[in-house]
Amino acid sequence: MANKMVKNAAGREVVTEINGQKAVPYQGVGKYKPEGRKYAPWISSCADYPDNGDKRVSNIREALVKAGIKDGMTISTHHHFRNGDLLANMLFDAVHELGIKDIRWFPSASFPCHEHLIQYLDDGTIHHIEGSMNGPLGRYVSEGKMKGIAVLRSHGGRYQAVQDGEVEIDIAVIGAPMADPFGNANGLEGDSACGLLGFALADSQYANRVIVVTDNMVPFPCIPWQIQGNYVDFTVEVPRLGLPEEIVSGTTKITKSPDRLLLAELTAKFCDAAGILKDGFSFQSGAGGTSLAVGEFFRTLMKEKGIKARFARGGSNKYLVSMLEEGLVDYILDGQTFDLDGVRSMRENPRHVWTSPFTSYNYHGKGNFAPLVDVAILGATEVDINFNANVVTHSDGYLLHGIGGWQNCLFSKTVILPLPLVRDRVPVIIDRVTTLCGPGELIDVIVTERGIAINPLRKDLMDAVRNSDLPVKTIQELKEEAERLCGRPEKLYNDGKVIAAIKWVDGTVIDVVRKVKV
Amino acid sequence: MANKMVKNAAGREVVTEINGQKAVPYQGVGKYKPEGRKYAPWISSCADYPDNGDKRVSNIREALVKAGIKDGMTISTHHHFRNGDLLANMLFDAVHELGIKDIRWFPSASFPCHEHLIQYLDDGTIHHIEGSMNGPLGRYVSEGKMKGIAVLRSHGGRYQAVQDGEVEIDIAVIGAPMADPFGNANGLEGDSACGLLGFALADSQYANRVIVVTDNMVPFPCIPWQIQGNYVDFTVEVPRLGLPEEIVSGTTKITKSPDRLLLAELTAKFCDAAGILKDGFSFQSGAGGTSLAVGEFFRTLMKEKGIKARFARGGSNKYLVSMLEEGLVDYILDGQTFDLDGVRSMRENPRHVWTSPFTSYNYHGKGNFAPLVDVAILGATEVDINFNANVVTHSDGYLLHGIGGWQNCLFSKTVILPLPLVRDRVPVIIDRVTTLCGPGELIDVIVTERGIAINPLRKDLMDAVRNSDLPVKTIQELKEEAERLCGRPEKLYNDGKVIAAIKWVDGTVIDVVRKVKV
Repeated sequence: MANKMVKNAAGREVVTEINGQKAVPYQGVGKYKPEGRKYAPWISSCADYPDNGDKRVSNIREALVKAGIKDGMTISTHHHFRNGDLLANMLFDAVHELGIKDIRWFPSASFPCHEHLIQYLDDGTIHHIEGSMNGPLGRYVSEGKMKGIAVLRSHGGRYQAVQDGEVEIDIAVIGAPMADPFGNANGLEGDSACGLLGFALADSQYANRVIVVTDNMVPFPCIPWQIQGNYVDFTVEVPRLGLPEEIVSGTTKITKSPDRLLLAELTAKFCDAAGILKDGFSFQSGAGGTSLAVGEFFRTLMKEKGIKARFARGGSNKYLVSMLEEGLVDYILDGQTFDLDGVRSMRENPRHVWTSPFTSYNYHGKGNFAPLVDVAILGATEVDINFNANVVTHSDGYLLHGIGGWQNCLFSKTVILPLPLVRDRVPVIIDRVTTLCGPGELIDVIVTERGIAINPLRKDLMDAVRNSDLPVKTIQELKEEAERLCGRPEKLYNDGKVIAAIKWVDGTVIDVVRKVKV
Repeated sequence: MANKMVKNAAGREVVTEINGQKAVPYQGVGKYKPEGRKYAPWISSCADYPDNGDKRVSNIREALVKAGIKDGMTISTHHHFRNGDLLANMLFDAVHELGIKDIRWFPSASFPCHEHLIQYLDDGTIHHIEGSMNGPLGRYVSEGKMKGIAVLRSHGGRYQAVQDGEVEIDIAVIGAPMADPFGNANGLEGDSACGLLGFALADSQYANRVIVVTDNMVPFPCIPWQIQGNYVDFTVEVPRLGLPEEIVSGTTKITKSPDRLLLAELTAKFCDAAGILKDGFSFQSGAGGTSLAVGEFFRTLMKEKGIKARFARGGSNKYLVSMLEEGLVDYILDGQTFDLDGVRSMRENPRHVWTSPFTSYNYHGKGNFAPLVDVAILGATEVDINFNANVVTHSDGYLLHGIGGWQNCLFSKTVILPLPLVRDRVPVIIDRVTTLCGPGELIDVIVTERGIAINPLRKDLMDAVRNSDLPVKTIQELKEEAERLCGRPEKLYNDGKVIAAIKWVDGTVIDVVRKVKV
């Protein structure tokens, strides 16, 4: 494969072609201006759909045949069932039974439960995956075993790619915890309740054929409709879509690790000192143990100060829900629900609002919600001395995580990464990240247990905390401290085969991932 | 103008070109199959929108200039403020001040309050109107005074025309009773509360530039968002959008006319005898006095029979809301709210669901809600002996009404028109309708005070009521009875200038309206 490599605006060597499709190298934040028009789906006619609104067909296989499945097509799925998803496996069993080959699988993310699909990557049913890969599939791809190049996008980047026609979805298969025969669907009720279905929004709007699969069919109308039946071609009933205990955890837990609690406390104190915690502010934090702990420190500080937040962006969970219910937060603008309290709250509370990658993250819209958030608390696997960060690969080069909404959230007014200085005796702050996912100019603060580094671009933050007792250091100092603890990491130069491309929020290629040396 | 006329599938002579754009003649119900793709809006970039999400500009004029207003553009508005709308008048005052000419005004409907705009039709600011015209503008157009040809579409047809790119909207101006600076908007709260904003959905999704104008700006996020800020370019604050007492009536009233009450009672009895009123059924009826009375008769019968409806399609009003609150109806699927109880219920009750012309009526979707409705009770100005009906012109040829959702509702399982046999001493049932709006094959039953006519195509209905005591007659008999009462109407042959085209739900031309002879 003579795939020409070029150095992009971040200084990374990237491919100019991905699986036969031209790719634009990253040009800098806000620099690449899209031209042309959004993807235009075919016009349908009600004359071609059943008069009684009943679009049911007997099984997934029949739906695929009616949808005109052919070799080489693109099939999309969503990941709201997380590691409890049974549908993608059923789906590709059916694709395989039909003898179809070379499918591009376009999930919003894949999980360890999808290890079942490795056989279909091996036998050519699936040509390649475009979407986050958590766990076994990431390992498989990292070892160079997949035929095509993986493409990783943020949640917003996935919407953008579909909207802009970079990825044309032939068939979208949307698992729905509740649906009606017409195709209206939501994630709020039923054995597979997962909260919302926002990751499938683009798929429903733009795919040529849309199949809604449910284990909880109700008479029309399914209310509310998070997915609109007017975009749906076929509906299918199956006995079970997912494993409830793996879809939503009943046990979201705040970290008990003293190190992590320290990171969380420092992060909250920093926000307070910097003047971010003021009445009407907004924040986003994830469902990881440290993020949850930050939220709890916020709660305490907010009560002390007698302030409330206008909105919190989630990933929702019981802690965030209790802040909403206590009146500490006016609204939760939720992108995915991580536990049963989140699902319940979304079902019952009009102030717990479902959002989508379109509202929150799509960079090729007329604005999105991400830059309206005052502070986003995010994670990373590595950060370099220019504040560039990596979220997809480990220092050993294995591609084991997805991007999620991480890149999109970098547009928040202040981005803070609370990170342990060292993980498994490997420094987290290094000279150059293994894989570049987020440009340093968008990352403002690194909080470690041994000090806080503020991006020099944020003089305002430096000034704001100058007189506090916070342990502010330079990122260089933090890096050196990490190296004193565990030695300077040997940087492996890897010129192996490109196995994945990392897209920036505007569809350009910010970096590539190469086959690991095993 | 050498506009070639052809006879369409309904036997009507229609234009093949409208204002310079090619038009397809009506080909029969479900016969015209659209080809090609939906309209594709330009791709935007967040880099071109304010980082803080604040899209406010100081006034409508500035917004128009920033939106790049030019001669000959298409500007759209919605009619949720009905006869209380102040915005369209303000808007065209600004267009006129800017010296712009030849605008195509594309409202979802216009009302008597828009008489103010006749000066702008006279002076060339507005070239022509595409949208329903109620009252003075209809009269103006009927008298041949407008430069271009008016185009009348159903609510669903308007969505279809925008979606399919038949009408490219340059600038959409969306009045919003509640909005945030980002452009999220709803119709639920504020002095101009009108319930929902569904008529502006297509405009927000497809217009090149979208301006949200509000008299009730709230901090982000405006919840719920019926219009999504991600589609919005500019937001504007004005002191007052509308006259509340004309936007939503506080006084929706059931008819007290004994004749109308008889029509309503006969209609309800017919539905009962025909087996339509069964547990889990669905119905749609309007906000007119007779329709409201039908609803009340339904209520009584439903209570007697111990049944409830799965859903009612509205136009909502206090009577329908009370049925919802009494548990006689599971859901209201609402297209527009006609009174304050409707607005309150929509705000408070998750079972009072806002819909849009996309969900309910768009014929170029993958199905819509209209055919799922068991019975629709509608009006008409005239019906002919083939059950064809007219809703836009009077027998004197004046174009005084819009189509609304009427054509779309004809796809309901049973369509009933309760009509007085005679209006102002003119028969309502005649040989040939002045203007054809709905093909007779979709109209099932005509209920008059002197008898009920069932479309011979509906043998099932004939059989169902055969043994009832309902006064079933042929439509021919009803027509003759009307003529005995007031004489056979003299049919004016009119070969005057075409002043309006009537679109069918699929975008084809079902009839035209000619200049009245004055």
